Amino acid sequence: MNDLTAIIAGRGVLPVHLARTLAAQGAPFLVAEIEGAGFAASAEPGWTVEPFALERLALLFDMLHDRGVTRVVLAGGLTRPRLEPERIDPKTAQLLPRILPALGQGDDATLRAVIALFEDEGLTVVGADAVAPDLLPAPGVQTYVQPSQADMGDADRAARIVATLGAADVGQGAVVAQGLCLAVETLPGTDAMLDWVAQVAGACRPDPNGARGVFYKAPKPEQDRRVDLPAIGPATVEAAHRAGLAGIVIEAGGVMILDAEATRARADALDLFLWVRSP
Amino acid sequence: MNDLTAIIAGRGVLPVHLARTLAAQGAPFLVAEIEGAGFAASAEPGWTVEPFALERLALLFDMLHDRGVTRVVLAGGLTRPRLEPERIDPKTAQLLPRILPALGQGDDATLRAVIALFEDEGLTVVGADAVAPDLLPAPGVQTYVQPSQADMGDADRAARIVATLGAADVGQGAVVAQGLCLAVETLPGTDAMLDWVAQVAGACRPDPNGARGVFYKAPKPEQDRRVDLPAIGPATVEAAHRAGLAGIVIEAGGVMILDAEATRARADALDLFLWVRSP
Repeated sequence: MNDLTAIIAGRGVLPVHLARTLAAQGAPFLVAEIEGAGFAASAEPGWTVEPFALERLALLFDMLHDRGVTRVVLAGGLTRPRLEPERIDPKTAQLLPRILPALGQGDDATLRAVIALFEDEGLTVVGADAVAPDLLPAPGVQTYVQPSQADMGDADRAARIVATLGAADVGQGAVVAQGLCLAVETLPGTDAMLDWVAQVAGACRPDPNGARGVFYKAPKPEQDRRVDLPAIGPATVEAAHRAGLAGIVIEAGGVMILDAEATRARADALDLFLWVRSP
Repeated sequence: MNDLTAIIAGRGVLPVHLARTLAAQGAPFLVAEIEGAGFAASAEPGWTVEPFALERLALLFDMLHDRGVTRVVLAGGLTRPRLEPERIDPKTAQLLPRILPALGQGDDATLRAVIALFEDEGLTVVGADAVAPDLLPAPGVQTYVQPSQADMGDADRAARIVATLGAADVGQGAVVAQGLCLAVETLPGTDAMLDWVAQVAGACRPDPNGARGVFYKAPKPEQDRRVDLPAIGPATVEAAHRAGLAGIVIEAGGVMILDAEATRARADALDLFLWVRSP
């Protein structure tokens, strides 16, 4: 296609992966980097990178229209922004009444409101997997190590917990061992939760020689799958290993693997299983 | 009443509080202490304390019948037991098929199965609050400090999260600040969660000068309220203070306050509110 795609880039490796994918496809794109997200450091020669401030979102829309952008993909982490009121331009100020009420209603509501703004500008919002389908792996166990019966039971229970939690717009992950919930993902994220399992919660496994447990990750049932699809990568495997877990289970079609080859290789090296589980 | 009450005593101060209450009422009682629960150290002269092993539960029933016990109250914490198979007597072995399947289905199922065993023995199982009604405080704010509008909003969100989690038989508490879920209670319990907020999650509050957040606690919707009603006490106030929270909110009628006077005094001294909130 000849449509110009804009990557709205937050923190992390996902926006870089998308830019590389589009570049490899020969598809025209530009990157609009959220101020401070750190994308520019990874940019390659020939890429167009434009920073923008959330306080001047209206100027971003003007820029996207000027350049002829028709499709946008929102990618990467966004720490909840602290807006500086004196930087907000008049046009952006008119958009705020549509965003601010959603902020208090959780991530899903906020992202839906942001997507609606882009769509009202006539832009098509697509998910990262529409740009790079390899991000969503096919169902199956990806590693030499396979989950045991106990691990499958723990995955079942974790899946039910995460689905329940997601309905309350809390987290996208949980750790279950021997049928018991050791940890639930909240605002600090996956790595903080897995560190806590390593340091504190792991000692609560009833049988020290029993099943070591699984980290399960899935998108929230209500979330717009075009944005904020959860992701794992090699660092997740390291953290799950430090937490003493038997493996990682992700919902098929709902969780991306960043750098899939390295992720699988690390899991194999550490004797963890990586299971892309059909919900 | 002249019925003999047995306190089935696990860890912690609740069984001791119940024994003192019954003694003060002049009501006849005995204490059956789960081996290793540490009750005996707090026993007062004249109290009857009999230890028992979970592997010999049938012998406990025989003893209760021999003594003429008609009413039992299960009180105090019970770490998930590791049974020693060689200690299990033949009569208790016959009870195990009713308990073991429930163990894998979570705390609620396990406790329901245990209660059913006592009831099948013809014993009446009552809640701790039936013995000591002062454990369940009346609705209202118990402290000088009152919750702000923001705190009330955080309490609303936390109450919804805990109700949702409870339906999945996970935890009985959550920490919410500025509308965001910082932590959810899992197997390691309240103190471990509040420590984690103090050390890690607290730094994720979006506005460092904004609402500090609340710790909310409620029973699970499906749990049998005769057993395992959650409880707070002075140590909970200390932990909430270390976590930088504005206050503690408990569901009226569903959460006990152990040593209510000292708990309120500690909250007042640390400028936290303590709110017994009608659901």
